[in-house]
Amino acid sequence: MNARMAGLRARLRGFAFGGDYNPEQWDRAVWDEDVALMRRAGVNLVTLGVFAWASLEPEPGRFEFGWLDEVMDLLHAGGIAVDLATPTAAPPVWLSHGHPEVLPVMEDGKTFGFGNRLHYDPTSPRYRQHAARITTALAERYSGHPALAMWHISNEYGPIAYTPGAAAAFRDWLRRRYGDDLDALNDAWYTRFWSQRYTSWDQVAPPELPRSWSNPARRLDFQRFASDALRECFISERDIVRSYRDDLPVLTNFMRFYRHADYWRWAAEQDAVALDIYPDPGRDDSRVAAALNFDLMRSLRGQPWILMEQAASAVSQWRVNNVKPPGRMRLGSYQAIAHGADSVMYFQWRASRGGHERFHSAMLPHSGTGARTWREVEALGAELPRIAEALGSGSRAEIAVLFDWDAWWGLETAYGLPRNDFDYPGMVTDHYRPLLEGHFAADVVSFDSDLSRYRVLVVAGAHLVSDGFVARLERFVAAGGTLLCSYFCGVVDPHNQVRQPAYPGAFRGLIGAYIDEYWPARDGETFEVRFADGTTSVCDWWQESIHPESARAVAWYASGSLSGRPAVIQNPFGSGRVVYVGTRLPPATLHDTVLATVRDAGVAPLVEAAPDFVEAARRGNEHAEFLFLLNHSDTRTARVAVPAPGVDLLTGVAVGDHVSLDPLAVAVIRTERQRQPAAT
Amino acid sequence: MNARMAGLRARLRGFAFGGDYNPEQWDRAVWDEDVALMRRAGVNLVTLGVFAWASLEPEPGRFEFGWLDEVMDLLHAGGIAVDLATPTAAPPVWLSHGHPEVLPVMEDGKTFGFGNRLHYDPTSPRYRQHAARITTALAERYSGHPALAMWHISNEYGPIAYTPGAAAAFRDWLRRRYGDDLDALNDAWYTRFWSQRYTSWDQVAPPELPRSWSNPARRLDFQRFASDALRECFISERDIVRSYRDDLPVLTNFMRFYRHADYWRWAAEQDAVALDIYPDPGRDDSRVAAALNFDLMRSLRGQPWILMEQAASAVSQWRVNNVKPPGRMRLGSYQAIAHGADSVMYFQWRASRGGHERFHSAMLPHSGTGARTWREVEALGAELPRIAEALGSGSRAEIAVLFDWDAWWGLETAYGLPRNDFDYPGMVTDHYRPLLEGHFAADVVSFDSDLSRYRVLVVAGAHLVSDGFVARLERFVAAGGTLLCSYFCGVVDPHNQVRQPAYPGAFRGLIGAYIDEYWPARDGETFEVRFADGTTSVCDWWQESIHPESARAVAWYASGSLSGRPAVIQNPFGSGRVVYVGTRLPPATLHDTVLATVRDAGVAPLVEAAPDFVEAARRGNEHAEFLFLLNHSDTRTARVAVPAPGVDLLTGVAVGDHVSLDPLAVAVIRTERQRQPAAT
Amino acid sequence: MNARMAGLRARLRGFAFGGDYNPEQWDRAVWDEDVALMRRAGVNLVTLGVFAWASLEPEPGRFEFGWLDEVMDLLHAGGIAVDLATPTAAPPVWLSHGHPEVLPVMEDGKTFGFGNRLHYDPTSPRYRQHAARITTALAERYSGHPALAMWHISNEYGPIAYTPGAAAAFRDWLRRRYGDDLDALNDAWYTRFWSQRYTSWDQVAPPELPRSWSNPARRLDFQRFASDALRECFISERDIVRSYRDDLPVLTNFMRFYRHADYWRWAAEQDAVALDIYPDPGRDDSRVAAALNFDLMRSLRGQPWILMEQAASAVSQWRVNNVKPPGRMRLGSYQAIAHGADSVMYFQWRASRGGHERFHSAMLPHSGTGARTWREVEALGAELPRIAEALGSGSRAEIAVLFDWDAWWGLETAYGLPRNDFDYPGMVTDHYRPLLEGHFAADVVSFDSDLSRYRVLVVAGAHLVSDGFVARLERFVAAGGTLLCSYFCGVVDPHNQVRQPAYPGAFRGLIGAYIDEYWPARDGETFEVRFADGTTSVCDWWQESIHPESARAVAWYASGSLSGRPAVIQNPFGSGRVVYVGTRLPPATLHDTVLATVRDAGVAPLVEAAPDFVEAARRGNEHAEFLFLLNHSDTRTARVAVPAPGVDLLTGVAVGDHVSLDPLAVAVIRTERQRQPAAT
Repeated sequence: MNARMAGLRARLRGFAFGGDYNPEQWDRAVWDEDVALMRRAGVNLVTLGVFAWASLEPEPGRFEFGWLDEVMDLLHAGGIAVDLATPTAAPPVWLSHGHPEVLPVMEDGKTFGFGNRLHYDPTSPRYRQHAARITTALAERYSGHPALAMWHISNEYGPIAYTPGAAAAFRDWLRRRYGDDLDALNDAWYTRFWSQRYTSWDQVAPPELPRSWSNPARRLDFQRFASDALRECFISERDIVRSYRDDLPVLTNFMRFYRHADYWRWAAEQDAVALDIYPDPGRDDSRVAAALNFDLMRSLRGQPWILMEQAASAVSQWRVNNVKPPGRMRLGSYQAIAHGADSVMYFQWRASRGGHERFHSAMLPHSGTGARTWREVEALGAELPRIAEALGSGSRAEIAVLFDWDAWWGLETAYGLPRNDFDYPGMVTDHYRPLLEGHFAADVVSFDSDLSRYRVLVVAGAHLVSDGFVARLERFVAAGGTLLCSYFCGVVDPHNQVRQPAYPGAFRGLIGAYIDEYWPARDGETFEVRFADGTTSVCDWWQESIHPESARAVAWYASGSLSGRPAVIQNPFGSGRVVYVGTRLPPATLHDTVLATVRDAGVAPLVEAAPDFVEAARRGNEHAEFLFLLNHSDTRTARVAVPAPGVDLLTGVAVGDHVSLDPLAVAVIRTERQRQPAAT
Repeated sequence: MNARMAGLRARLRGFAFGGDYNPEQWDRAVWDEDVALMRRAGVNLVTLGVFAWASLEPEPGRFEFGWLDEVMDLLHAGGIAVDLATPTAAPPVWLSHGHPEVLPVMEDGKTFGFGNRLHYDPTSPRYRQHAARITTALAERYSGHPALAMWHISNEYGPIAYTPGAAAAFRDWLRRRYGDDLDALNDAWYTRFWSQRYTSWDQVAPPELPRSWSNPARRLDFQRFASDALRECFISERDIVRSYRDDLPVLTNFMRFYRHADYWRWAAEQDAVALDIYPDPGRDDSRVAAALNFDLMRSLRGQPWILMEQAASAVSQWRVNNVKPPGRMRLGSYQAIAHGADSVMYFQWRASRGGHERFHSAMLPHSGTGARTWREVEALGAELPRIAEALGSGSRAEIAVLFDWDAWWGLETAYGLPRNDFDYPGMVTDHYRPLLEGHFAADVVSFDSDLSRYRVLVVAGAHLVSDGFVARLERFVAAGGTLLCSYFCGVVDPHNQVRQPAYPGAFRGLIGAYIDEYWPARDGETFEVRFADGTTSVCDWWQESIHPESARAVAWYASGSLSGRPAVIQNPFGSGRVVYVGTRLPPATLHDTVLATVRDAGVAPLVEAAPDFVEAARRGNEHAEFLFLLNHSDTRTARVAVPAPGVDLLTGVAVGDHVSLDPLAVAVIRTERQRQPAAT
Repeated sequence: MNARMAGLRARLRGFAFGGDYNPEQWDRAVWDEDVALMRRAGVNLVTLGVFAWASLEPEPGRFEFGWLDEVMDLLHAGGIAVDLATPTAAPPVWLSHGHPEVLPVMEDGKTFGFGNRLHYDPTSPRYRQHAARITTALAERYSGHPALAMWHISNEYGPIAYTPGAAAAFRDWLRRRYGDDLDALNDAWYTRFWSQRYTSWDQVAPPELPRSWSNPARRLDFQRFASDALRECFISERDIVRSYRDDLPVLTNFMRFYRHADYWRWAAEQDAVALDIYPDPGRDDSRVAAALNFDLMRSLRGQPWILMEQAASAVSQWRVNNVKPPGRMRLGSYQAIAHGADSVMYFQWRASRGGHERFHSAMLPHSGTGARTWREVEALGAELPRIAEALGSGSRAEIAVLFDWDAWWGLETAYGLPRNDFDYPGMVTDHYRPLLEGHFAADVVSFDSDLSRYRVLVVAGAHLVSDGFVARLERFVAAGGTLLCSYFCGVVDPHNQVRQPAYPGAFRGLIGAYIDEYWPARDGETFEVRFADGTTSVCDWWQESIHPESARAVAWYASGSLSGRPAVIQNPFGSGRVVYVGTRLPPATLHDTVLATVRDAGVAPLVEAAPDFVEAARRGNEHAEFLFLLNHSDTRTARVAVPAPGVDLLTGVAVGDHVSLDPLAVAVIRTERQRQPAAT
């Protein structure tokens, strides 16, 4: 546990509860009511100033801190700590009006203008200079303020620009990456194809609008560069606030499955991971991807994390913005905690009266304290202290799921694959879902993670893999680990070049087979797969022509062009084994395949025989373990056998060998620690 | 009745019948045939010169009037009056070639080029200067021509541009609107949100291409500005032609449900309202929106109006351009007259041989006088004089439907609503349809209209309302009026800011309830609504969590998240009452709800018990009343009971207590006036 | 037969077999393996250097020919001839980096950048100058090389640009076309409409982004200009290589149904026609359009042609790139030969390791000689010599199908038709399909072709027709020919202007009827058509109101608005007759109508009573005839009666009165010539 975060935890003495607070949107008279209602709701932390640049620096270099002084004082007097944001996500109009070159230009040449947010090119020196100035001014003024508990650097760092400045920055990045060796870049980008060889660095540029398709390695490197450029912006502001005071956590807020920034690299630069997440209440299954994101956030640093933004009810960015029905917001909040969050925070405290997000829900809605949403927020604030003991607790998993940004970019950045509608987060989620529904704990790993502490690894969509990862994977399996691997993995290297002499490239040894053809299905085409036990299922979308070498088939195609060929194989490898799934199994079959693999590897679920709509997660510390059980059904009651007796912290009722959960109910069952402590 | 229009009516001595005439597309030899065939068809008015700028002024300042002199003389000799157009809707190539800055630039930065029409920025001083010159030259030359009967200013004024010039004009407009007070603009635009505060006027600009979503109040004001800018163009040309001769009507042609110009404000600047309308023959229900547009046109000035353009058969702008089957063009023409039109005019007289609209139908088709379309045009021209007595007659309604451009812009201009697929004209049409199908006469009103002469007001989609309208509405209901109001009304003020302290803002008192949540349905979700009489219907799309204060429920949700809560409520308010419909009722249920409300208010239909596919409308003058009955079915005969005996002017046959209408048939039943005259 | 092609044929002594070879993508060590495997596969011709510009001229004017010298020598030593490409389809980065004005700008103002291919404006003098230099250098160096057998000019010439340079070139082209007479252009473009008259040439420009729709004649001329501009690029490079050596074939590779270049005009500039074709294995019917393209390629010069590129299996440009199942690649290769190809060539020899096309299949796949694709390629290479006798043979047809680029552009270039979802190649394919399924041989003709040698002409989608074609058509029918003609033909002239005085304009005499209305169906609308024999079928999409003059009806509408009116008519015209189909018949009915028409004209199929999934084609020379029979079903065996006994060249087995074909099987039945030789 990071010492700065330990300080914050000690200060808050409980789960952080609060949200974005934008007093600059309201008259002074409202502020007193805000603080009073925050106290009533149990708020102990607010994020201040996220979009306040224009209020703080209305003209270049002229600062107006009076209002913020007063708000900080008011909050402090109310016992509410402040997560102070640098306001650099939304530059004032004077910046883009005076310096239009800071505006972002997109790949198709369009320039985004002022009047939204993220209307800046993150590589712009001018932007960075102004961002540094306001950051410095804030740090200088507020580093010593007693309300200050944490720094929130900018907000939801977004995509990159295709400006001339970005091109120059990209070239610099490439020179570093390729050791100033243009031939190395030519090789990496395979510029031998389509006459793309560069002979001087100044010819190199970001991907340009292509007549049809552009160089896949160039696109990939630009994604990597863009991710690094965004992280640089964070680091430069972080270093400024640290230079004034070094004992507070500094972080920015991540987003759900955000493609443009490699959060593994980024998390290492922060004191803790923080997540903004808005699962769509309009979809029945949004809890699955949410759980995976939560596990990813916990795994990024192997520590509890901060749920920085969620909606009290509806959002405002979709065509249809559904509300969260009664109980859903509470359930989603506990789901985050179950997977390692040490906070429940919202965007935002009070619903805006105008602006784009005027109908985004808030802790305090337009219709005020009479509204259902307020009542649920208030009730949750009152309830959270009951589980305060779980704060800071860790978790342990014997299964890990790969989620890696290079793998993502390899599968989705470039066109030209056998099929081009891959959805990397979707594929990983599909393979994670059986674990969630089967009540197995899972961590998330990257290409660079230590795999040795797991028993089972689930790899999906890893079309691109690094040599280091392959080597680690081979050691992992050779040492007795179990690998479950999806189709189309291992095929290309980190330059998007096909590994030879045969498919699946780097994974040929692991899976004990070569593949001579990837065989995407026609639209609407299905084919039967028959398992050794005689069960069959109907697959679609993808096939492979697998030629086992050391592997043996577990399932075969029973119809279609590949009838009789293996669809799922199993390969012994050292002391371990690999299950390779060469087609897209239907969810129920994938569920059975994943869970059989996991059980064969000797891993036990957190609870046995619970319905799949109940979610289970466990946190623990040196004294106790906390089993979270969440009933995601809004109609069915669930009876769940629990592994050890304890007490449901939310009700204070003792739990024996089972617990019964009403629809949307949550139980947090505390048991005394009996085994070695879970990792923190 | 406007004196200038009275002059025109006296001159034409009957319904105007004719169309756009473009002799500049044809050789001289064709003109004589044109006039001969016009006479054969009964044409008495043609619109001349709409797209003739390049023919009249082939080079800047060099005019070629000879051909137009000859055409005017020929028409006059043929007894055909001329509606002379200023040709400013399609500037010649020399304008945009010589001054590319007059070309319109769109929000995404694309510039539209020469070669279509409306290829100009209406705020461009250069464009306006050249438009004034050709207008002046035309007025000077033709004001005294005996054929001249009306001025037609430009054509179908279209949308606005995002040029630097438009930005400057927008800033000037804003300074006037906000009294040169930038703080007032900052407040109105809620620039406190997302750091959008302006500190000098030169920073303010039209909405720029946003990375995601832009400021809703800024978009709204830009719509208002654009509407005003277009109207300015009209006014400046109108004033020129008026300065030469002041006794002729001057107007431009409006369009069906045209979003970018507030026709209420515009109509006040014209001598009469004129409409171009092209109901899609490919849709079964296009007559409903047509009728609403007709009623809107009549209501804009409370006077008979001019059907300026319709198609003789197919148009040419859609993917599929369906023809009007036999009888449909005649029926649609009488429908316009029934709702107040004093003309039947077409685009265009003779089908073009080339150009984009070469397959747009015409009075005289490509295949000539042998074509069915010609025969139907000729027959209508011969028939119209039979109802000449109805010319200039007015109408009277006890019901009014709100159609307001600010309401429209408030619902559709900006993203970020609970759902973002609102269709304002569609919502109004849905609520108007029951009146049409139930044979009730209705006027249309705006936020600024006098409501006191109505008994029932139907308000739909008025998410944005002005304070003045709310006050007038409250007086109207308090004085005994009935208000039927759709969901999501009254919520925001004219700056798109949410009215507080609770939903539905300005309408809380009227509906006698507050709402704590707007609750859009998931895609595909439905829910049952049960009425007090036990009938049920299946709704979708929208719900609200209504908390009655003084209202009582009329219908309740019987399934879904809001089961048991009120869906439709009724509130006594002063001497009147309000029916508030908080969900999207299916058409049949909305039909029943609207008609029950209207009947409860003591309003009677024009005819009783006619089938819903028969349309009824009544016009009247001091001598007689004219009951129009139109059978819109092409398969069913209708028997309609008529309220008073009379004579069918089209057949000359006496009508007793009922009339029988063949498929697509029309009757115009004249009865002697027995009551006070209808308003004119 | 072109003498240069005769030389090539003599040199290859068999069908050309090979593909694109890109040694610049591979290290030197791979080249020896390449040549060895080429020999093993029977490769005798490779296309070299298509995308090698950057490898040959890494900096402006500095050439690196060493590697190509070595490759040419190696191939020559291996007995493999070279089709040497000018590499001008993919300019090196130094060209567009140093001269950004060579980049293509699209109609909407977007510029395509470097990093794909075809990133040049074909009208750019700078581009042409550099293209000429590399072409000259290649010709100078390799014209005398013994491996050189053919020149391949550039690659798949693509669309045009909207740069200022293109505008200037377009103006020059127009001045030539209209004899420097601006009035002629104004007339042709019907600029009388919408005020588009030009008064000086510098005002004229390519179609600009229109607010709604642009001038249809302007769009049409720009298409013609674009086609000519591309052809000019070809000609200028062709003339350079010819100036060094005049005895080798020079050509470029055409594409399937390529809209932007008129291949009739282009083919006349080449020594032979070459085609790249990638029928989608994901569609069941892609063989029909393939056959039509093959017949088109043969007809363009009335000679055998070169299948220059096909895929060994999957391509990489679609969302889903399906593989060719076993046997399909062989079948498709024989299909091309059956329709006149003298080669089987592929893109490409060895699968790329990187770049956009890394997953495009190749003769030598990623997984090497163990892959199924390689085995099929190798087997085909070994089998082709068995039919070597058929090389150079011609064919003869009594039926011709019109496929003309002006007709295409007339139907699809401009909006504003009664419906705007016409698909010209699709319409022609629909009318060609019955001939293919009925085993009739067909040629393809243009507006300018000699029609006199045919007995039946099938014209579909010829909305635009030239006067010359109409005259030729009338002579053809008057002289006893049979014309089958689809709806909406003959309507406009080559300026997209409607022919008058009545529809269908130029075809009124031929069809013996006038039409007063084109009557597109509503979406989803159907109507019954009843034939004289009482059979009925359900049509949709299109109707016409036909008024027979000399024609008689063959089928009538039995429902819908036109019930009772003729749907299909037949007209005697001179000694011949015309069958006019005024609606879109369903495929089975169109099949019967076309085949009845053809049989009534006395034309016999190649084989009688074979199933429709068997394709038949015949080639012949002075000694023998070769009947190709291809079973396109992958499940059904076919028994086919053959007209004369012979020998199946593929099996060496004698064939009596019939042959039995397994699924996907091919037979090439040689019979001694008994009649006069087929045309070559």
